[in-house]
Amino acid sequence: MVVYLVGAGPGDPELITLKAVNVLKKADVVLYDKPANEEILKYAEGAKLIYVGKQAGHHYKSQNEINTLLVEEAKENDLVVRLKGGDPFVFGRGGEEILALVEEGIDFELVPGVTSAIGVPTTIGLPVTHRGVATSFTVVTGHEDPTKCKKQVGWDFKADTIVILMGIGNLAENTAEIMKHKDPETPVCVIENGTMEGQRIITGTLENIAGKDIKPPALVVLEMLSMFLKK
Amino acid sequence: MVVYLVGAGPGDPELITLKAVNVLKKADVVLYDKPANEEILKYAEGAKLIYVGKQAGHHYKSQNEINTLLVEEAKENDLVVRLKGGDPFVFGRGGEEILALVEEGIDFELVPGVTSAIGVPTTIGLPVTHRGVATSFTVVTGHEDPTKCKKQVGWDFKADTIVILMGIGNLAENTAEIMKHKDPETPVCVIENGTMEGQRIITGTLENIAGKDIKPPALVVLEMLSMFLKK
Repeated sequence: MVVYLVGAGPGDPELITLKAVNVLKKADVVLYDKPANEEILKYAEGAKLIYVGKQAGHHYKSQNEINTLLVEEAKENDLVVRLKGGDPFVFGRGGEEILALVEEGIDFELVPGVTSAIGVPTTIGLPVTHRGVATSFTVVTGHEDPTKCKKQVGWDFKADTIVILMGIGNLAENTAEIMKHKDPETPVCVIENGTMEGQRIITGTLENIAGKDIKPPALVVLEMLSMFLKK
Repeated sequence: MVVYLVGAGPGDPELITLKAVNVLKKADVVLYDKPANEEILKYAEGAKLIYVGKQAGHHYKSQNEINTLLVEEAKENDLVVRLKGGDPFVFGRGGEEILALVEEGIDFELVPGVTSAIGVPTTIGLPVTHRGVATSFTVVTGHEDPTKCKKQVGWDFKADTIVILMGIGNLAENTAEIMKHKDPETPVCVIENGTMEGQRIITGTLENIAGKDIKPPALVVLEMLSMFLKK
């Protein structure tokens, strides 16, 4: 019994790695949570497929329930794949699942994926680094654990480029915080449905971006190097 | 004529994307620079392969020479691939190459790759984010353009995890700078030859890591969550 935590990439099914495909082909069970991953599941022919993501109108599984299910399936099968959007360790809660496996003495392997934090800007021609202009970038969640008593994200990041994942729900609140440290005229680029059908690019400034019509899933990039925008 | 800037991933040839493989199969010409990519070049059967990387004892091409060559090949061929380690826009100088193409009116496409900044830590079981512990990470170059008159990297990053690429040559100097902002006892993890043969993990603290025997290519991760280390 071994569990592979596998990154499925940012959405475009072609942006999965060969290693992920090869592991899926050997899988007995696949736990998945992103509807966008369904096209990728064809590689796991014959495997038992378990959807553990959110579903409108249904109870969805808590992280604890997913951990328990993962352990149960690992004990009953040779090779279990836990398929995750992007990279398993970039806000994928992969660490929590690994802790659950370690506690039960279950072996695990990791297959990194193209995180949307980088893969989405790169695809539209927006470099997160550029010699002499951006020598660092920070990736941060826009949706901190709401059960935390103290906010951990201070928004006073010093990196040249900032990429916010899951940043739409709290966009007004977060841009207000960022404006305490950065010029309200700082350019912002939002990419809806990055690398997928319906991809849409919305540009603005820190001050006005939250007023625009944006729907998740979307990625927010600050201080974009707009000269490169491809589309 | 179109130029694809393609990310080859962090080193393990299985960590290339399906899209990269499909583009390589159609390539007339491939410009590449990482010896680790040679196994990947087999997908570009029949294509003209041009090595533009460093080679001991030989003159190697400057970025300007590479840009010129890329433009020349694009004008004479239908599909040119510029293959780069990791992701083309994470310290890959992809932006400079695209500017050269734009100037000549040459069409381009981008294929993101798994950056070593994330793919290498993930592979060894080192999460760059973890719920409640690390809600942000910064990726930075350890080797700033030496022709700059003023240093751009201040090393006072506020993110929970810091990943330094190309960080070995200046490790003593950079860790000294970081210690102005962080505890000298901050744990540090270095991964040599990540995802490749000869992968080696070296751990230490901000204060002592520069004294250890480390050879590039290697990646430096600060505030590692050592409980997850797989090997």
